Amino acid sequence: MTTKKIIVMKFGGTSVADPEKIQRAAERAISERRKGFGVVVVVSAPGDMTDELIALAERITPRPDDRELDQLIATGEQVGIALFAMACRARGAAAISLTGPQAGIDAIGDASRAQIRRIRARVILKHLAAGRIVAVAGFQGLAPNGDTITLGRGGSDLTAVALAAFLKTGRCEIFSDVKGVYTADPRIVHDARKLSRISFEEMLELAGSGAQVMQARSMEVAERFGIEIHVRSAFRPTAGTLIVAKEKLMLEKAFVSSLALDKSEVRLTIVGVPDQPGVAARVLTALAAADIPVDLIIQSAPSHRGVNDMSFMTPKAFAAKAKKTLEGVAKQLRAERVDLNEQVAKISAIGTGFRHNPKIAATMFAALAAHKINIHMISASDLRVSCVVDLGQGESALKALHKAYGLAKGKR
Amino acid sequence: MTTKKIIVMKFGGTSVADPEKIQRAAERAISERRKGFGVVVVVSAPGDMTDELIALAERITPRPDDRELDQLIATGEQVGIALFAMACRARGAAAISLTGPQAGIDAIGDASRAQIRRIRARVILKHLAAGRIVAVAGFQGLAPNGDTITLGRGGSDLTAVALAAFLKTGRCEIFSDVKGVYTADPRIVHDARKLSRISFEEMLELAGSGAQVMQARSMEVAERFGIEIHVRSAFRPTAGTLIVAKEKLMLEKAFVSSLALDKSEVRLTIVGVPDQPGVAARVLTALAAADIPVDLIIQSAPSHRGVNDMSFMTPKAFAAKAKKTLEGVAKQLRAERVDLNEQVAKISAIGTGFRHNPKIAATMFAALAAHKINIHMISASDLRVSCVVDLGQGESALKALHKAYGLAKGKR
Repeated sequence: MTTKKIIVMKFGGTSVADPEKIQRAAERAISERRKGFGVVVVVSAPGDMTDELIALAERITPRPDDRELDQLIATGEQVGIALFAMACRARGAAAISLTGPQAGIDAIGDASRAQIRRIRARVILKHLAAGRIVAVAGFQGLAPNGDTITLGRGGSDLTAVALAAFLKTGRCEIFSDVKGVYTADPRIVHDARKLSRISFEEMLELAGSGAQVMQARSMEVAERFGIEIHVRSAFRPTAGTLIVAKEKLMLEKAFVSSLALDKSEVRLTIVGVPDQPGVAARVLTALAAADIPVDLIIQSAPSHRGVNDMSFMTPKAFAAKAKKTLEGVAKQLRAERVDLNEQVAKISAIGTGFRHNPKIAATMFAALAAHKINIHMISASDLRVSCVVDLGQGESALKALHKAYGLAKGKR
Repeated sequence: MTTKKIIVMKFGGTSVADPEKIQRAAERAISERRKGFGVVVVVSAPGDMTDELIALAERITPRPDDRELDQLIATGEQVGIALFAMACRARGAAAISLTGPQAGIDAIGDASRAQIRRIRARVILKHLAAGRIVAVAGFQGLAPNGDTITLGRGGSDLTAVALAAFLKTGRCEIFSDVKGVYTADPRIVHDARKLSRISFEEMLELAGSGAQVMQARSMEVAERFGIEIHVRSAFRPTAGTLIVAKEKLMLEKAFVSSLALDKSEVRLTIVGVPDQPGVAARVLTALAAADIPVDLIIQSAPSHRGVNDMSFMTPKAFAAKAKKTLEGVAKQLRAERVDLNEQVAKISAIGTGFRHNPKIAATMFAALAAHKINIHMISASDLRVSCVVDLGQGESALKALHKAYGLAKGKR
C-alpha cells in the first residue's frame, strides 16, 4: 500500500482510558491507513494514569524533584503507545510505538515545562514508508543531556501539532470526549449548536474564558505553522469543528460564534484604596511576584471620600494565596479591607469585530437586564465581551444570551 | 565526599513494592553513600507492576507482540527508579535515575529475552564522580535499532551482576524478601540455618531443585566474571548469604549444604514400552520438539514381557502438553498407556563431593525408610541427590533429612 499523504491523529487520555477504548482508537487509525494515508498517532497516557503516578510520587515526598517526576510520568504515554500498537497489530495492521526520544522529538528547557525544539523525522518517515502506523508518545521529548522531559499539561496536543508541522501535513485531528466546539456548553444550553469552523483567535479567547477544549499553547503553535486543527469525538464518526486561520472564515461582519461560562474563578476586591498614583501598579506587581494569574481588572471611580475599590478575578486555586498577598498590600496602602467573593461566574461572548459593533455588548447587557441578572464587572475586547454575575445566575445567563444572539438557529 | 569504592545494590520488586518500602531502600543506599561508597542501585518494577502491565496487554490481545510488550513492561522499572531517586533526594542525598538505555546498557537478541552486550559506563561514572546515587532500571537495555528491550524474568539480577562486572566492584548486593540461603525452607523446617557462604555450583543445583533465590542465568554470569553475590534481606540489617566461587570454600570433604523441596513438578510415565533400541531417544526428541523441560529421567528394567516403563518429571504448567505429546509417541511405539501423577514432590540434597562419598545418598535413603517414606524415583550427581516421594510426605521428608544430615547444628 503506498502512502499518498500523512495524517496526524491524536487521542487524549479519555479516548484511551481502557483496553476497549484503545481498540476503538486503533480501529480508527487502521481505517485511515486502509484508505492509503500514512498514519501518525499521538497517544496520551490512558485515563487517570498521569494523576495516579503523581499521587504515587507525592507519597514519596510532597515536593518531588522535577527531573525525576518527568522520568516517572513519561511512562504513562509509553504505556499508551505500546498498548495502541499492540491493538493495531492484533488487527493485522503493521504498527510500531515510539517514545518521544525514539521518535526524534528534541526538547529544550526545564523538566515539566519543556518546549519542542525540533523533530528529527527520519525514524518516523522510515516506519511510514514501510507501511506502519506510527504511535508516538505525546507530552515528552529528549533533552540535550539525554533526559526524557515533559512538555507540561496539554503537551500531547502540542506533540501532535508539532508533528503536523514537521511532517507538513497541514492538519491535525484531535480526538477526545468532546464532539467539537459548541455555541455554548450543550449540557446547559440544550439547543447549542456544534460549529463547523472557528478561528484560532476565537478559540484562544474561549480557552481564556473557561472552555477547556484545547490548551492555548498548542493552538498558538498550530496557527503559527499554518496547521488546521480538527477537534472531534473519539467515539462518534461524525466531523467535529475545524479550527482555522481567521482569513479562512468569511468575515464580512461582526458576529458572536460561541459563549463560555466559567465557574472556576473567584472575585477579590480591595475596598477603600486611597486614590493616589501608582496604586494599581503596586497591587498588580505584588500579585505578579506571587505568580497569581489575574483577569478582568476593574478599578471603580473614586468615591466622595477620595478612595476607590479594585476588583479582579483569579482561579479558585489561587484564592487564599491572592487574599493573603492582597492583605499585605492593603496594609501598606492603608486600604480598608480585602473581600473575597466565591459566588461568582464569568460569562463571555466570543467572536470577531466587536470593537466596531457596540451592538454586541449592548445585546448582552440588555438580555441580562431583561432576565434581572445583575452585572458585577464588565470587560470587553475586539474578540470578547465578559460579564461577572452571581454564580447562581450563571446558567440562566448563558441560556438567555444564547437566545439573544440567535446562536441556536444561525448558520456558519 | 570522595568515592573510595563502588558498590552495586539491587532491590527486587517486593523490596520496592510501595512508597514506604522504597523509602527504606533509599535509606540503605544513602547509608552506604555516607560511608563514602559510590553507590549504584538497580531497581526492579515495584510489586506486581510487571504482572499488571502484562494483564493489561492481554486485555488488548491474548498474544501481544514481543517488541511492544517490552516497550510496555519496561515502564515498570522506570517507575521504580524515578520513585527511588525522588526518595533519595527528599532525604537530601544527590541522586539520579537512569533507564537501561540512558545508563548505557546495550543489549542484543530478541525482545523479551535479550542479552546484555556491554555497558558503556561513562554516564554512570560521571554521575558517581559528582557524588550522586545512581538508580538504574533493571531488566532492560538499548537494542541496536533504538528499541528498549528486556532481559527476561530475573533480568534485574542480571543487570546488577553485569554492572558489578563492568564497574569492577567484585561484589553485588541482592536485596529481597529472603534473608539468605538456608539449609532448608525455614517455613517448613523451623531450625533451618542461614548459610554464611555457598558456592555458585550449589546455588545452581538449588535453583534447579525448586529453591527460587536467584535465577540461574545471573549466577552463571557472576561466576564467569568473578563477582560475589550477597543475597540479603531488604528489611533487616543483618548479613545474608555470600555466593562465592567453589575455590573460596573449604572443601576438604563431602558435605550437604542445603535441602530443597520442589512441589511444582508432576511425574509422567509411559507404561509398557517395548524394549527396543532407540525408544528413549524417540521419546526425548518428541518432548524436546514440543519445548517441554524434563528432569529425572528413569527407565525401568525390562519386565518378563519384554516391556519397560519410562518416567520423568516436568513442571506442572507443562503437564497437559507433555501428556498429549507422550500419547502420540506411545501410539507409535505401541506402548500401553501414559500415566500422569500430580501428587508428587521432589526432595534434593545439595552439596559437594557426593560422587566420592556414597554415604550421602545412603543417609538420604535410610532416613526416608526410617520414616516409612516411599521413594518413587532417584537421581544423583556429584552435587545433588534427589528423590521423588508422595506429595503428602514431602514436608516430613524435608524435616527428616534436615535432622539426618545434622544441618541445624553444623557450622560452615
